[in-house]
This record gives sequence, C-alpha cells and structure tokens, in this order.
Amino acid sequence: MLSKALQKRILALDNKKQRKESGLFVAEGGKTVLDLMAAGIALDKLIATTEWLKEHRLDPETEVIEVSNEEMRRISFQQAPQGVMGIFHQPQYEADYTTPERELCLALDNVQDPGNLGTIVRIADWFGIENIFCSVGTADIYNPKTIQATMGAIGRIKVHYVNLPEFLESIKEKAPLYGTFLDGENIYNKELKGNGLIIMGNEGNGISKECSRNITERLFIPNYPSGRETSESLNVSVATAIICSEFRRRG
Amino acid sequence: MLSKALQKRILALDNKKQRKESGLFVAEGGKTVLDLMAAGIALDKLIATTEWLKEHRLDPETEVIEVSNEEMRRISFQQAPQGVMGIFHQPQYEADYTTPERELCLALDNVQDPGNLGTIVRIADWFGIENIFCSVGTADIYNPKTIQATMGAIGRIKVHYVNLPEFLESIKEKAPLYGTFLDGENIYNKELKGNGLIIMGNEGNGISKECSRNITERLFIPNYPSGRETSESLNVSVATAIICSEFRRRG
Repeated sequence: MLSKALQKRILALDNKKQRKESGLFVAEGGKTVLDLMAAGIALDKLIATTEWLKEHRLDPETEVIEVSNEEMRRISFQQAPQGVMGIFHQPQYEADYTTPERELCLALDNVQDPGNLGTIVRIADWFGIENIFCSVGTADIYNPKTIQATMGAIGRIKVHYVNLPEFLESIKEKAPLYGTFLDGENIYNKELKGNGLIIMGNEGNGISKECSRNITERLFIPNYPSGRETSESLNVSVATAIICSEFRRRG
Repeated sequence: MLSKALQKRILALDNKKQRKESGLFVAEGGKTVLDLMAAGIALDKLIATTEWLKEHRLDPETEVIEVSNEEMRRISFQQAPQGVMGIFHQPQYEADYTTPERELCLALDNVQDPGNLGTIVRIADWFGIENIFCSVGTADIYNPKTIQATMGAIGRIKVHYVNLPEFLESIKEKAPLYGTFLDGENIYNKELKGNGLIIMGNEGNGISKECSRNITERLFIPNYPSGRETSESLNVSVATAIICSEFRRRG
C-alpha cells in the first residue's frame, strides 16, 4: 500500500531542487530498474504493482512496496506506467579531469531537452564512452524523463557537471577538442583520435562562444547530395550518434 | 480573433480520424510554417499572435488570423507556443513503387513514437532520402508531434503508407533490402549500394517476421569496445541516423 507521505516524496522528485536535497531519483520500467540494480546503484525503495509482481521474479531478499495499478498511476511520471518504479540514491563519483587525455569523452554545452540528454547517455553507452562532462546549464541527468530515455544506460556512464569553458581551457593542450560547425571539415575525411572530447552544443544555438574558441578540431557532418536544399541541422542526439559511430568505426 | 468554431476545428486535428476526414494538419513555429509554405504545401489558415506579427514580415498578400497570446495557448499543441500556427492541406502524391530500384529509400515497420517518426523524416531530409515507405501500423505523419519533430523537413520528403510485407515481397528481386539485426554483419565492412530500401523496425520489437524474411542484407551497428556490457539496442531514430550516414559516407 502506498502512504500519502511516500506519494508526496515521490512526486517531489520531479523537481531538481528536491532531487538535489534528497539525493534520490526515480526510474521506471522493469528493464531500467533491473539494469540500475545490476549496475550497483543503491536502491532506496522498490514499488511494484500486484500484477507486475505476479509476472516477475525478484530476489526474495528484496523489499518491495506492493501497490495497485491505480496507486502506481498516481506516482508514475509516465503516461503509460509500466508496473514498477525504483527510487535510487544518486551515485557519487569524482570527476577525473584527465580522462580525455586517455580516452574519448563527450561534453555537452547547454543541451536543454531531458530526452536528448538521456538519448545521448544511451548512445555513449553503446559506443563505450564512459564519461560525459556537462556544462552547468545542461539538463539534469536525474530528471525522470532523462532517466527514462537512458533505458538503463545511466548505470554504466558517469555524468559530471563542470564549468565547461574553464575545463576546455585547461585541457586544450593535452587532448584534442572536437566540435561540429557549419563551416567545419568533412568528418568522413578528417583524422580522428581515440582520445579527446567531443563537444555537442545547445539545440537552438549550437556551441557557445566561450566553448568554441578552444575547439581546434572543427567537424561537419555533410548532407547529401551536397547542394540539395535540406534541413538546417540535425537533432543534437542524432548528430552525437553519427559522430560517435564515425570515431568508433575507425577503431 | 479566434472563433469558437475554428478553435474546435483546430483541436480536433489532434485526432487521426479527424485529420483524415478534413485532409488538414497543424504545424507550429516560424521555421516550420515558413519552410512548409516555401515547399509549396497549400495553406488553409495562418494564425499568429500580435506579438509574433510585430517581429516578422509576411508577404502582404498572406491572410492571417491575428490572435492574442492567450488564444494561441488555447489552440497550441505545444507546452510553449511559438506565436504562429499554420493549418495546411495534406499534400497528395502517388507512391512510385519502383523508386528503390533507382535510389535509396527508407521503410518503417511499425515505428510507434510520433517523435521518432518526425526525427527520422528530418534525418532522411539531411541525407537526401526523399521517399519513406511506412507500414500501416506506423505512427501518422500528420500527428502534430511528428510534424513538430520534422522541423519543416516534411515539406521535402514523401511519406507513403503501404502494405509493407507485400511491398518488400514485390521488390526483393529488383533492389537490395537492408535491415539491422543483432546477428547481422558489421555495417562498416559491408558493401552498401546507392539504391534499395533500408528497413527500420518497431521500438520494442524490431523488424517483424513478415518483413524480415525478405531482407537479405542483414546489418549490425557494432558497439564499442566489442564485448563490453552495454545497452541492448539504440533508439530507432539514432540507429537510422548512423545507418544513413554510413551509406552516404560511401557516396
């Protein structure tokens, strides 16, 4: 059964400030919840419908709050609740600012849409990019919509919020800094390294001036055929996917 | 001023049946509306706020219904209305089923999410793929969320609803049929032609049995590094982007 107090605490997790204060976040759906548990993210509470529990076997040690479908509807952040919700503790890890010297990392410069951020985390997971450095203006990784879009990948990827322009300034001589620009070079022909930072910009405005001045490797995803009238740009998560694929194709 | 009758007619366009009966669809935002007009999509009505009209110059011949911000809020399908809305006639065009013999086309096998469909149209536009064949179970291209996600690309791309398994059966000997499967071949090493159909599957279930039996070119987007535990799959629009980029990279 769902207490009023718990319901209130859960719904408050839609709010960034409340998430920060409690150090908690919500994940929904069997795959996401089980992926996070498997990745060792500490569970605070597991809530599942009677129906879901009939169809899924959990470790008998796991404490579950059993609720009705109607109760789940009241706490779910989704239009079609999936029968199970986990309240998790936000994992704590220190950012290692030297990572881009050794491996490929992503940086997000004010990506606003929670869905885009989650999709980018899922892409990073697929392509083995384990660290994402976000500007402080980027959407919150623990937004329920973001968690949903990561499809469990958040358990394997570390997301750090940093002063991005300062960070780029500090590593520009130690690692290649890549960004896409309309006047960049054709990515298919350009030399791409196995380390460095790929910086992706805001949905409407692209990469900010403060960040772009330190980006030396200017890339462009060519449209096809060249010269055909087309969309002005690609969605930021779509562009991230194409760029990561191209880096990893080269091995 | 906005009449009650017009408000009702606009809100009805959220419903697929109503869109079909009226032959109309809604697009919002200056860029999308102007892109559709530029592409020659016939406008039924243009509605704009006093504020938007002050900041934008339209052809003086264009008839506009001027509304207040509050009136726009009542008819907008978006959380943050953008000040301008076009009601357009759905363009009529015949599908040419021989197109995949000559050029690269996309086919969507029950893609459900309106946002994914719109993002795929935008990707197709970027990569010069002008025809998309959708199974009848695929989301409706005129859903306001889909139109929104195309960012105007819908004016340049033709979307056809067909009996997809029958269509694949009918062209399998005339054009290569590509699809992604977990046991497919590494796309980076596989020969890719400049014509044919790239078939993308449903968000949860991938490509249906009825379609997959006619797909001879089985592809896989390798994760990195091979063997690392990762997400089980990529989002369908993200996978579409990577595949289209790889086809066009080869020219």
